[in-house]
Amino acid sequence: MTTENSQPLPLLLLTMGDVAGVGPEIIARAWPDLLALCRPVVLGDLGWMERGLALAGSPAQAVRIARPADAAPSARSVPLLQATGAALDEVRPGKIYASAGQAAYDFLTRAIDLTLAGEAAGIVTCPLNKEGLHAAGLFYPGHTEILAERCGVQEFAMLLYGDNLGVAHVTLHVALRDVFANLTAAGVLEKTRLLDAMLTRILGRRPRLGVAALNPHASDGGLFGDEEERIIRPAVKAARDAGVDASGPWPSDTLFNRASAGAFDGVVAMYHDQGHIAMKLRSGWRAVNISAGLPLVRTSVAHGTAYDIAGQGKADASSLVEAVRVAARLQG
Amino acid sequence: MTTENSQPLPLLLLTMGDVAGVGPEIIARAWPDLLALCRPVVLGDLGWMERGLALAGSPAQAVRIARPADAAPSARSVPLLQATGAALDEVRPGKIYASAGQAAYDFLTRAIDLTLAGEAAGIVTCPLNKEGLHAAGLFYPGHTEILAERCGVQEFAMLLYGDNLGVAHVTLHVALRDVFANLTAAGVLEKTRLLDAMLTRILGRRPRLGVAALNPHASDGGLFGDEEERIIRPAVKAARDAGVDASGPWPSDTLFNRASAGAFDGVVAMYHDQGHIAMKLRSGWRAVNISAGLPLVRTSVAHGTAYDIAGQGKADASSLVEAVRVAARLQG
Repeated sequence: MTTENSQPLPLLLLTMGDVAGVGPEIIARAWPDLLALCRPVVLGDLGWMERGLALAGSPAQAVRIARPADAAPSARSVPLLQATGAALDEVRPGKIYASAGQAAYDFLTRAIDLTLAGEAAGIVTCPLNKEGLHAAGLFYPGHTEILAERCGVQEFAMLLYGDNLGVAHVTLHVALRDVFANLTAAGVLEKTRLLDAMLTRILGRRPRLGVAALNPHASDGGLFGDEEERIIRPAVKAARDAGVDASGPWPSDTLFNRASAGAFDGVVAMYHDQGHIAMKLRSGWRAVNISAGLPLVRTSVAHGTAYDIAGQGKADASSLVEAVRVAARLQG
Repeated sequence: MTTENSQPLPLLLLTMGDVAGVGPEIIARAWPDLLALCRPVVLGDLGWMERGLALAGSPAQAVRIARPADAAPSARSVPLLQATGAALDEVRPGKIYASAGQAAYDFLTRAIDLTLAGEAAGIVTCPLNKEGLHAAGLFYPGHTEILAERCGVQEFAMLLYGDNLGVAHVTLHVALRDVFANLTAAGVLEKTRLLDAMLTRILGRRPRLGVAALNPHASDGGLFGDEEERIIRPAVKAARDAGVDASGPWPSDTLFNRASAGAFDGVVAMYHDQGHIAMKLRSGWRAVNISAGLPLVRTSVAHGTAYDIAGQGKADASSLVEAVRVAARLQG
């Protein structure tokens, strides 16, 4: 199968994430759809891939391979690189294990190394659990920070993307109380420029960006806070001076409605839940994560490990399919 | 016209809000729909009501009355109490005026006094502008605080309601930075109980309430903040001990999806934009505000003065119609 310009489909690495979460089963469930979008290779654990395939009622077999170039993915064959030495037999779905945290880290770092070495076109990640990472002594807030460190990158962002809207977050995995110390004009400008660059790749044109306010009613003229005037407005001006089609700060409770009505292609959010509440409501399982600012293509499902339903074979694989779709498009 | 139990329709007072905003024109546009829901009486300014009717292309005339009991609302007659002495001739749509701020305050306080005196069944408010209030030397954050003060009430909340979901906010019109000093277990408990009581009146049964977390991922087990364990969880337990069907704290970026899927009738939000981003996306112009904890019925449109489109005759009146619908139901 080939893409419209007759290039072979890109080889994408799917990391299994935390095996106690829904990763194995969503890979298994999504598998037939993924074959139409890319040449998928799983970085994970053979035993857990077999369990995922059984849970999904898949006719496919997991097939261990030594390197991505050996992969021959098909409806009956799921090529897998055994990418961890962690003992995962004791792991049960829905619980936190240091071994599963270590394995999730191993899957990801192996995928990064292989992609940077040119053995794959990009990475699509299934969810990991931060408490599992921490239990393994790996003190990262999430995937994005591991990717940035291993790629040697300082300026990066996790974008949410779904239904023709991209969202960048100026602060992300920090307590809401710590947003204020982390919110700077330089940070707003950086994320605005990263969002501009990524959406330009996706859309094939420069996007129109709306920058969210931090305070209710965008501070209502200074009645409720001053970050709009002190931090956000100068950053928007700097972005415009740099040629970015950005405006704001806009009150966040109407900005996403305006974006959904077509006024914006992208939104710069100031903190995690500001962007995530909106995107999960708008796009649900169609939302995906995109890493911006890295020297490789990486997308991810936008949901977590879903421990409450893991191992029951009922997890929705739509976000994984969309994440693979976007990764294949970015690679093209 | 009568309600299903053959009571006469309730007499509701509609306050015009800031005349430089969309209040006059949405009253005019909604008027035919309002007549099916209540006996509406406008508290406002005669000249601006006439402008609103002209903007909406309405065949109705504004008719000045001396007291609510004199009202005979109909498709051709909009009964109006001239409820301010402020000079409003200089006011132009879309700008801040001290006179318009004073007038909005006058309309509201007159409506409160008449309703407390038993001359009306409730109040439905059009938007005011806080900067207009402040220009008039009236230092209130919004409608709700004026209502609470004039009614002599300490425990109150502004609820958002739309599409079968009610949302209460523990903190509201404060800078995001000030949320932390204002967030207490007592406050979470108070708003949870107010939401429980109000939704019980609307639904005719006890509601299922989901209490939102403050931090991303509900702090992910303490990685990003401690307000969940220190403040919110004890409040949820106290609410349950008091017989309220409450649970949480839940990550706010999936809580509203779960509520939309039917898991909850109400959500307790920790800060303004947390609830407002979700409700504006879910319900748009169908969202309304309800004051809880007051000795009178009061609902409101959930949008602002919309200065950017005021005076152009294109404002959507749906929220006003829904606000009147809910007020009439609460009164019944």
